[in-house]
Amino acid sequence: MEINLDTVSQMIEGNQGFHKFLNMKMLEYSEENAVLTIGLPFKDDYARLPSVGDYHGGILASAMDVAGTFACMMKCGRVTPTMNLRIDYLKPAVKCDLRITAEVVRAGRNSAVADVKAQDAEGTLYAVARGGWAVMNASKE
Amino acid sequence: MEINLDTVSQMIEGNQGFHKFLNMKMLEYSEENAVLTIGLPFKDDYARLPSVGDYHGGILASAMDVAGTFACMMKCGRVTPTMNLRIDYLKPAVKCDLRITAEVVRAGRNSAVADVKAQDAEGTLYAVARGGWAVMNASKE
Amino acid sequence: MEINLDTVSQMIEGNQGFHKFLNMKMLEYSEENAVLTIGLPFKDDYARLPSVGDYHGGILASAMDVAGTFACMMKCGRVTPTMNLRIDYLKPAVKCDLRITAEVVRAGRNSAVADVKAQDAEGTLYAVARGGWAVMNASKE
Amino acid sequence: MEINLDTVSQMIEGNQGFHKFLNMKMLEYSEENAVLTIGLPFKDDYARLPSVGDYHGGILASAMDVAGTFACMMKCGRVTPTMNLRIDYLKPAVKCDLRITAEVVRAGRNSAVADVKAQDAEGTLYAVARGGWAVMNASKE
Repeated sequence: MEINLDTVSQMIEGNQGFHKFLNMKMLEYSEENAVLTIGLPFKDDYARLPSVGDYHGGILASAMDVAGTFACMMKCGRVTPTMNLRIDYLKPAVKCDLRITAEVVRAGRNSAVADVKAQDAEGTLYAVARGGWAVMNASKE
Repeated sequence: MEINLDTVSQMIEGNQGFHKFLNMKMLEYSEENAVLTIGLPFKDDYARLPSVGDYHGGILASAMDVAGTFACMMKCGRVTPTMNLRIDYLKPAVKCDLRITAEVVRAGRNSAVADVKAQDAEGTLYAVARGGWAVMNASKE
Repeated sequence: MEINLDTVSQMIEGNQGFHKFLNMKMLEYSEENAVLTIGLPFKDDYARLPSVGDYHGGILASAMDVAGTFACMMKCGRVTPTMNLRIDYLKPAVKCDLRITAEVVRAGRNSAVADVKAQDAEGTLYAVARGGWAVMNASKE
Repeated sequence: MEINLDTVSQMIEGNQGFHKFLNMKMLEYSEENAVLTIGLPFKDDYARLPSVGDYHGGILASAMDVAGTFACMMKCGRVTPTMNLRIDYLKPAVKCDLRITAEVVRAGRNSAVADVKAQDAEGTLYAVARGGWAVMNASKE
């Protein structure tokens, strides 16, 4: 598998499995600073209570994991499965479309670290995440 | 809202929002050691790639967050929103039904800490998580 | 105890217990964005191997915990003990003086979240940390 | 450098740098379950306030990092620098001697995960930690 913006966009916007449910949009990737942004338009199925429209934490964790994973993959040019992820929930996100932005802060030979933010269009910050990703050996892929 | 095994089971097995998709089953709660167990029967929608049947990390993170949340809620008798969660992925889980077990390791006046494990029926461990939950004031609920 | 820049500086630069060993200097606190900076001049006792001069990870973790704690204390005007802390080591720091910068990203009624960086004078980033702090009730102090 | 119980004990009980200050004792290593235990006898220099005798969080983080590091090193037979560590403080430890116990929960080709506990002689649990360690390539050491 070649890793480039096209193949990564296809994986993020995937029409099967959990990504089909998550319905994420690839928005942009800045090669210069290794920042990848995903769009997450709100839908009722994301909510803890659809009558309230409050995002379930697991949706944020899932989309932030995806953003971090593909930022690392673009930066490293390798498959980069998530080793671990810490997410901090700062305030409830309600019925808003979200932008998930991941920045690679370390890209090593065998591991990478990325920071991820979940914000709405106005820049309000709802959650932050940080994790470690394994950088798979080219020969093993 | 009264917090007891019936109301908590209803929230976990909820038929709306993200919990409807997650399709979790409340299996047991041991009051003695504050351990709550949730069942997660595999379905293709959980997969990264349905042809492979490999659980998406976000599904594990979501179910583990839920298990930790409701273990803390049962232990503390309060609403306990997740403040933060760290998850470590140990090995890929493929097509198996999972048991998600959460144990409260600290229950304070304003915060709690829980440990969560994701295992299959044979006890194979696929992921571990640890997080901090806020213990809401009774008067604020 | 009153919490202000003077009392906080005295606690950080404390001449007893572990702070005496750590030998930290209070550099600045920006009230506008809740950012507190501590100086950590290198000494051999910080090293894993004094012949190499490589900072022991525990020294970084300790100073970053302190910076986060006092940034939260200044921001919240309350005693703020550390609940949890995640630190990511990005590259070895060798024999350089460090600046430890902590920024409060959430200040709630009962808990706070802060981000911390360890950098040298040129801005090279050696470690990042993020944690949760309890905000103690005024009446309990 | 050969990695065995003798060389690891010497590094833990090291008479130079930060380990000299930390004054840890290697207590035991169980090869069967990859559990390593370190003793940390209380001294005033560990305290936040020597008059109180309350362990500074950084001391716990440091000793728990060391225990996790050397448990991974013994299990993997490789040098295993810490990539990241999350510590949760459960209750203040005051003037007691501590036992720091690290258990390797995953030992992969390039990374490992360990769980660490800080307890007193009676088994009271003061802090828990979990982290990721890099497993260095034999040829790079």
